[in-house]
Amino acid sequence: MTVLTGSDVPVRNTNDWSPQPPEQPLAVVRPAGTDDVSAALRICHEAGLAVVPQGGLTGLCGGSRPIADAIALSLERMVGIEEIDADAGTITVLAGTPLAVVQRAADDAGFFFPLDLGARGSCAIGGNLSTNAGGNRVIRYGMAREMTLGLEVVLPDGTVVTSLNKMLKNNAGYDLKHLFIGSEGTLGVITRAVLRMHPKPACTMVAMCALKDYAGVLALLAAARRDLGPLLSAFEVMWPDYWDVATQQVSGVRNPFEGDATTHGAYVLIEALGTDPAIDVPRFGTWLETQLELGHVPNAVVAQSMSDAAALWGVRDACSEFIQAIGPHLPFDVGLPTADMDDYARRCRDDLAARIPGARSMYYGHIGDGNLHLIAWLPGAAEPPKQAIEEVVYGLVREFHGSVSAEHGIGTLKKPWLGHARTPEEIALMRTLKKALDPKGILNPGKVV
Amino acid sequence: MTVLTGSDVPVRNTNDWSPQPPEQPLAVVRPAGTDDVSAALRICHEAGLAVVPQGGLTGLCGGSRPIADAIALSLERMVGIEEIDADAGTITVLAGTPLAVVQRAADDAGFFFPLDLGARGSCAIGGNLSTNAGGNRVIRYGMAREMTLGLEVVLPDGTVVTSLNKMLKNNAGYDLKHLFIGSEGTLGVITRAVLRMHPKPACTMVAMCALKDYAGVLALLAAARRDLGPLLSAFEVMWPDYWDVATQQVSGVRNPFEGDATTHGAYVLIEALGTDPAIDVPRFGTWLETQLELGHVPNAVVAQSMSDAAALWGVRDACSEFIQAIGPHLPFDVGLPTADMDDYARRCRDDLAARIPGARSMYYGHIGDGNLHLIAWLPGAAEPPKQAIEEVVYGLVREFHGSVSAEHGIGTLKKPWLGHARTPEEIALMRTLKKALDPKGILNPGKVV
Ligand SMILES: Cc1cc2nc3c(=O)[nH]c(=O)nc-3n(C[C@H](O)[C@H](O)[C@H](O)COP(=O)(O)OP(=O)(O)OC[C@H]3O[C@@H](n4cnc5c(N)ncnc54)[C@H](O)[C@@H]3O)c2cc1C
Ligand SMILES: Cc1cc2nc3c(=O)[nH]c(=O)nc-3n(C[C@H](O)[C@H](O)[C@H](O)COP(=O)(O)OP(=O)(O)OC[C@H]3O[C@@H](n4cnc5c(N)ncnc54)[C@H](O)[C@@H]3O)c2cc1C
Repeated sequence: MTVLTGSDVPVRNTNDWSPQPPEQPLAVVRPAGTDDVSAALRICHEAGLAVVPQGGLTGLCGGSRPIADAIALSLERMVGIEEIDADAGTITVLAGTPLAVVQRAADDAGFFFPLDLGARGSCAIGGNLSTNAGGNRVIRYGMAREMTLGLEVVLPDGTVVTSLNKMLKNNAGYDLKHLFIGSEGTLGVITRAVLRMHPKPACTMVAMCALKDYAGVLALLAAARRDLGPLLSAFEVMWPDYWDVATQQVSGVRNPFEGDATTHGAYVLIEALGTDPAIDVPRFGTWLETQLELGHVPNAVVAQSMSDAAALWGVRDACSEFIQAIGPHLPFDVGLPTADMDDYARRCRDDLAARIPGARSMYYGHIGDGNLHLIAWLPGAAEPPKQAIEEVVYGLVREFHGSVSAEHGIGTLKKPWLGHARTPEEIALMRTLKKALDPKGILNPGKVV
Repeated sequence: MTVLTGSDVPVRNTNDWSPQPPEQPLAVVRPAGTDDVSAALRICHEAGLAVVPQGGLTGLCGGSRPIADAIALSLERMVGIEEIDADAGTITVLAGTPLAVVQRAADDAGFFFPLDLGARGSCAIGGNLSTNAGGNRVIRYGMAREMTLGLEVVLPDGTVVTSLNKMLKNNAGYDLKHLFIGSEGTLGVITRAVLRMHPKPACTMVAMCALKDYAGVLALLAAARRDLGPLLSAFEVMWPDYWDVATQQVSGVRNPFEGDATTHGAYVLIEALGTDPAIDVPRFGTWLETQLELGHVPNAVVAQSMSDAAALWGVRDACSEFIQAIGPHLPFDVGLPTADMDDYARRCRDDLAARIPGARSMYYGHIGDGNLHLIAWLPGAAEPPKQAIEEVVYGLVREFHGSVSAEHGIGTLKKPWLGHARTPEEIALMRTLKKALDPKGILNPGKVV
């Protein structure tokens, strides 16, 4: 176990990716294995010393950001693939292993690990599970939770709970892993995980569709679900405000509908994964042609190559470059009933502009999963007016019975807004759990609840 | 709220389907809604009176069987579909609604609710969720847990926790529903659920395959996963001991390989669900032909009609008629790593015969899910020697790092064996949860933990 203090504390351990100033922890502890994690927690538990678990530190809401007077427990040395079981379709990994390493190991073994997100190279599996990360393929494969079969966890008092289940079905008592998945390191430290791999898809089909309005988007989603069935792997919607910034102001992004002068009401990127190119590629093409003929889709482009597909995804991924295009802005990650997304977007756009003169916003998201992303900013302002913007965004989330976080989690940033999405009874029950598992409150205090 | 006592207690409320004598509860309470459930629990909590939640009473391990001196809280009057949201793909139901009613409502709305099991007409959604029921299509759609988006639950003290989430993604704080799913009514009473519906498949393909040995089964499973991909919806394996009893001793069951004199080492029923009969039916046929040509599958029969398919499923479903064929027997529902199932079956068969002279056993299961069913009996004996058989079956489960229950749950019947599948630390953590949520221990005491 390595312990670093004072000026030896690496800069990377002083913050996550949330827009907050760095914080110096009392010490950074880097365990070499589960026994070290257990020893560290036992000691801190006895001493009443707070502990902040750290994975890849790519979290977006302050969950792994250090607390002054607390230990940062970084799993960065606990890296490795422990086992691949081809018959069970499982991969067992140490919690500090970067997501990209897990993806590659699955790929090398002839399998597919479908969790994927922009931070893949630096985020760690333990962090992915603790935040129940989502990404682009939730509609088909679910979130990190759905990919997890077993966990090893160290409780705040140092007790090691080993539950390295490999079976899809196991109803022998409470399924404890769900306590730790998505609880952002407040109930235990994940040290190992058994993950479910999937067969490698044989072909990827990608298309970009332009649609008249949101009713058309909902109709297309229903048709895609029905006709492409379980092949459908992404259904990403972009509202025109997003589309225009992405295709006109972000360098390297090409508008696939160049020359099309129509004003479209929405854009949808559709991805499907097939098992046989000879069957599934033409099936996808025919399906899309039918949608065009039926008049549901005024315009569409199908990727003919990998680079075409990458270019179409480029429009969707442009959001990570928006800082250059629009300057400082606030990103949100709300959950909403699929049917209500367009109403929400319209209301939010109007209310933001009314509340903060000159404020702008744009909308995009994984609408099939009930997840809307939005970005709000005040052109010319060095810092967007955070409180006012959050009041509008989260106030409407409450009105629409949505969620203040679909995938990134609560951390410290969204903690003041948790009550906009969860009832007092739900929050009380979360506190009951926190108290039962961490009676001294040493694990990631002040986060989530 | 109806309260029935003494001789007014209906016989159906005195037992579940587990092989145990009926038990008379103090009273049967039948709430009309969530408020009644809350009032009943509050009163019982104050009085320190134990409560046994009851759904359809089809559970197989004593979970809903009454306890003397306890109230039976039957949700049988809380029946109804409250909402179908076509855009979100959700159905919201009262917990007492029979599974078949939910299936039908989804079907009427143009959707598919994939949970299915033999007791569909009498089991209730609340019971399905509390036992995290599995069934035949887990390999594609997951268990009851994976079909649940939101819950309303009443805690032991009467607090109503409403979490009727409709979104696939919601990371705003702890995901509380997982506490109640699969905990067999020991942590709270489920009163409502938001369930995820799927698109209706357009075609069903079914085949029965005869294989040389278990290595062939594993190879076929890998090929089916790879080539049929997400269309694969069932992969049911039957060992020859099961096959022979099912096809020779159960009336109404036809051997699809009649006239094939080869001694096969295993039989597999494969089902796939497609979205387009013109594409998926030939794809399935071609795939199976390839397996035959490659020599992986010595013999196979593809269903050409619905009645063919039903006949093939008939062999797999014959197990529910075994009482006529073999007399009294003990059924098991163990979980095992897929690769080890044949070794387990061989060891178990031999050890049972060695330990109990004359004892017989047979094997079948959802092997892709890690779930093996087995049946043990002593021909001629009025009662199979339960303790000795369980010691062998569960002793080997422990040795193989399996689970004492893949789908039916623990209840009271398997409680003595929980330690064969879960570590002391896991069981201690279950107790911590039980104590936190039900400090007075009034909810389903003596069940699970
Ligand atoms: C460029 C970029 C793109 C992103 N895209 C997505 C996306 O598409 N979808 C999405 O869901 N998220 C996305 N995220 C955010 C996402 O939450 C994180 O990338 C990732 O899941 C967190 O992993 P991490 O290892 O970096 O966690 P950290 O930031 O280190 O930690 C996150 C939380 O988990 C806790 N934690 C970490 N490790 C453990 C452990 N072993 N045991 C217990 N608790 C632990 C921490 O205390 C903290 O509360 C993105 C982030 C970036 C920077
Ligand atoms: C013919 C037959 C076939 C079966 N096939 C399968 C199968 O393929 N797969 C499978 O997994 N199971 C199967 N089962 C067993 C299965 O567990 C039950 O059929 C079903 O899921 C239980 O539902 P129920 O409403 O009958 O529950 P009950 O028996 O009434 O209750 C089961 C447990 O849940 C609790 N409970 C019930 N309702 C609530 C509630 N509202 N809130 C909190 N707790 C509650 C009870 O206290 C008890 O512990 C089968 C059973 C039969 C008889």
